[in-house]
Amino acid sequence: MNDEDLAKDYLIAPDPSAVRLTRRVTGRDHDGNEATISVVEERPLTIYLNSREIVTAMTIGDYPEYLALGFLLNQGMLMPDDDVTGVQYDEELEVVVVRTAQETNHEEKLAKKTRTSGCAVGTVFGDMMEGLEGVELPNAQVRTSELYALAHKINRTPSLYLEAGAIHGTVLCQGNRPLVYMEDVGRHNAVDKIAGWMFQEGADAGDKVLYTTGRLTSEMVIKTAMMGIPVLASRSGFTAWGVEIAQQVGLTLIGRMRGQRFVCLSGEERLLRDIDPATVREEDKKHRRKGAPQ
Amino acid sequence: MNDEDLAKDYLIAPDPSAVRLTRRVTGRDHDGNEATISVVEERPLTIYLNSREIVTAMTIGDYPEYLALGFLLNQGMLMPDDDVTGVQYDEELEVVVVRTAQETNHEEKLAKKTRTSGCAVGTVFGDMMEGLEGVELPNAQVRTSELYALAHKINRTPSLYLEAGAIHGTVLCQGNRPLVYMEDVGRHNAVDKIAGWMFQEGADAGDKVLYTTGRLTSEMVIKTAMMGIPVLASRSGFTAWGVEIAQQVGLTLIGRMRGQRFVCLSGEERLLRDIDPATVREEDKKHRRKGAPQ
Repeated sequence: MNDEDLAKDYLIAPDPSAVRLTRRVTGRDHDGNEATISVVEERPLTIYLNSREIVTAMTIGDYPEYLALGFLLNQGMLMPDDDVTGVQYDEELEVVVVRTAQETNHEEKLAKKTRTSGCAVGTVFGDMMEGLEGVELPNAQVRTSELYALAHKINRTPSLYLEAGAIHGTVLCQGNRPLVYMEDVGRHNAVDKIAGWMFQEGADAGDKVLYTTGRLTSEMVIKTAMMGIPVLASRSGFTAWGVEIAQQVGLTLIGRMRGQRFVCLSGEERLLRDIDPATVREEDKKHRRKGAPQ
Repeated sequence: MNDEDLAKDYLIAPDPSAVRLTRRVTGRDHDGNEATISVVEERPLTIYLNSREIVTAMTIGDYPEYLALGFLLNQGMLMPDDDVTGVQYDEELEVVVVRTAQETNHEEKLAKKTRTSGCAVGTVFGDMMEGLEGVELPNAQVRTSELYALAHKINRTPSLYLEAGAIHGTVLCQGNRPLVYMEDVGRHNAVDKIAGWMFQEGADAGDKVLYTTGRLTSEMVIKTAMMGIPVLASRSGFTAWGVEIAQQVGLTLIGRMRGQRFVCLSGEERLLRDIDPATVREEDKKHRRKGAPQ
């Protein structure tokens, strides 16, 4: 299958041609010649839950509704069983409002934030750790042949990264098929957009694999576990706390996945090693991701 | 000069051997063999300004005093002329407290945060944009020969990145000499630690160049301008808003700097193109940064 056809296999694939997502900027290159390159957009998006302003995220700006839903879900401010009556996005105001039938418990959480001097970072993180209590990830099996196939397809899929660089990618996968490929400048927005899509579609998490271009930090691991996805794979590296949390919640954590290579530091029992890595194609230069984004 | 000697040329160089910063973790590689790798630590650090809790940052944990000072300065919660009477770090509590002689204006800012439902992200960002009003960057000249020399030295300097990957690096430079090389898992902590060091040392910003492994996002550009540094260079890519803000404040912004190549999208007038890029060494494989961190 040639690279362009790969995108057809997705439910949602990146749209590198979307005019709102990239901008042509002109400068000068190392030789002093005029150089015009594509750079990704980065916009503020303010998320409201009912009448409350929750956060302003820096985002590339696609799928604001999924981003808002996913952010609130992954922060534990919206529960999977909450009755969402509407999600409205106002492009001009750069605001998205998520409405629920009943009041959610976010007032309490906001109160908590205020107690900690109004800064979200600490408490939101605290909320996420709380959210992990009681999380049970299913004993799904994952074939290494499927993981290799996924990485190979994803790296070749036309994307904003290949077009403009400096962007994160996260892909929801099932078996050897990448389903939903989200990209964003914001470190965790791509994951939140997938969480929002899963909520809207009522998608089952237990049989999925999450693939990310980003590092396997504590927050990435927590979000994946919050989403109920048992396997997180990345071409990037680990942090010690990310590994620790994955081991605590029994998440299968695979990193440094490049061509034939990978390292599994948690949840080894889910891996079914059904292929000889020596038979796996190495990444060709054209599709190898460069240093960016970081 | 061999790579190990490079570190001696810095005022502060990374310490890949520091036991507190990395951890050995054992898992299995692609062949199913036991694999033990170094992964970077990631810990919460709660920053207080006088009696107020301001933020909990996820950090690798070195130079907590510089991180606290730099974060508060770059957020505009601490002013360069504020009289800092003490910075105390409690390793056990993972808390650092910055004390000032007079009350700072942070109460007002915290009040603002509370008005926006206790979430820091939006208002902190707003504060930073406010902070840019009146920022004037000097017309320092930068030789491209020095930029190439800096990139070449920095990429070869022994670092946590080369040891364990999955970490950002930011280096304060002067002429062709890298002075202070900070690394961190946190996206902007490395920059904040440099801001803290500059404040403590009373270092002049006007003759400096900031080099980062990370993307040139709006926040990176804003922090650099807040620090008064006229030139920001990166091996990674740009975001559109990062470019826009750099052009507004007259910051020289250089990205995609790899071997002979780079692109300058703002502040071209500071560049003195004194070397033929064709004569510049390309990066050798050993020192080329891989995809991680992202």
